Amino acid sequence: MTTIALVAFDGFTDIDLLLPWDILNRVKAVGWQVNIVGMSSTHRSARGLLIQTQAPLDTVATADVVLLVGGDGVRMCIHSQDFLDKLCLNPERQLICAQCSGALILGALGLLKGQAATTYPTAEKELSAMGVQVIERPLVIHDNIATAGGCLSTLYLIAWILQRTVGIAETRRVLADAAPVGESKMFVTAIENVVAASITSVAHPTDTWMDSTR
Amino acid sequence: MTTIALVAFDGFTDIDLLLPWDILNRVKAVGWQVNIVGMSSTHRSARGLLIQTQAPLDTVATADVVLLVGGDGVRMCIHSQDFLDKLCLNPERQLICAQCSGALILGALGLLKGQAATTYPTAEKELSAMGVQVIERPLVIHDNIATAGGCLSTLYLIAWILQRTVGIAETRRVLADAAPVGESKMFVTAIENVVAASITSVAHPTDTWMDSTR
Repeated sequence: MTTIALVAFDGFTDIDLLLPWDILNRVKAVGWQVNIVGMSSTHRSARGLLIQTQAPLDTVATADVVLLVGGDGVRMCIHSQDFLDKLCLNPERQLICAQCSGALILGALGLLKGQAATTYPTAEKELSAMGVQVIERPLVIHDNIATAGGCLSTLYLIAWILQRTVGIAETRRVLADAAPVGESKMFVTAIENVVAASITSVAHPTDTWMDSTR
Repeated sequence: MTTIALVAFDGFTDIDLLLPWDILNRVKAVGWQVNIVGMSSTHRSARGLLIQTQAPLDTVATADVVLLVGGDGVRMCIHSQDFLDKLCLNPERQLICAQCSGALILGALGLLKGQAATTYPTAEKELSAMGVQVIERPLVIHDNIATAGGCLSTLYLIAWILQRTVGIAETRRVLADAAPVGESKMFVTAIENVVAASITSVAHPTDTWMDSTR
């Protein structure tokens, strides 16, 4: 069983949540489950789309992978002690990802302290003020924590999540499945190159992280 | 006023609808409106996401741009005379786009007869059987009709829609806004090159199509 929790809130950026929602759901693996989680049963996106959540926010504690998306609503989240208390994360045993301003949530939880990370340009100063070394890159990976900047770098995050959970072959199949016709090889290689170049340190260099899903 | 209708139905592919929904909503232009339209007030995606529509399907008749998305639900659509009757399209005065298997809807309406088009590999035979010359390319543009194959070629469709409606500068701003951090120039150029290479014939070569939106 591998569970992925995608964290929604009012004012989430649509792509950040719904592109990984679609692509991660293309994985063919026994016990693979992708859930949109949140404080409420519904959340409205930055562009006005109302979506339903499938599980409460505090279920992130038992997820194998947690993705914090970006959006204007992030500022409400980081000022809500209730939201932060329910976000019980453990980078020792979970893959933890943040897209764009979602990195501010990791910052508020103290998970990026003294580390390098990336975010959306408009959130750089806020993230720096949290003691994070902000670098202008599409993806920054440090052990089990990955941050991505610019909505479509979600593709790099997705690739990293898949490499760490279902292995290289299934990662390539899933990415190719979503690639533009006639461009799948180029598309997959370009993504793999960025992911490989983004790993600043590796928790378990010689091993695939979740044996049970292979 | 420029209205964009994104056509939803039960079993639509999430990315096909929701990636353009997000990016097209980033346009800053007076009277710019993006609507998700459909036969019902709600539709459920291929991945199980329930979304609400903002206008009935037959409002496509007055839209400036219509995007038909792909998904398993397309087969139900092309066998529903009610659905096809409500899809009153006119390529003389509308930009008409289809993503992946959405091209089968254009085929069923007879709008691709004798023309070249692209689609998702699993829909190639069905589209050929409709008298369409299927070519394996990410994007095929013929006058005011564009077809795209492979979910993420939606980025090429989006770029073409924006170039034809709000012009090159706003197109570049919107694409760069969604690009991975540090990659926006490369990202925008790559998309523009594919769009330029995909135009097989041009309806109004020396003019931007919708003057009112500039």
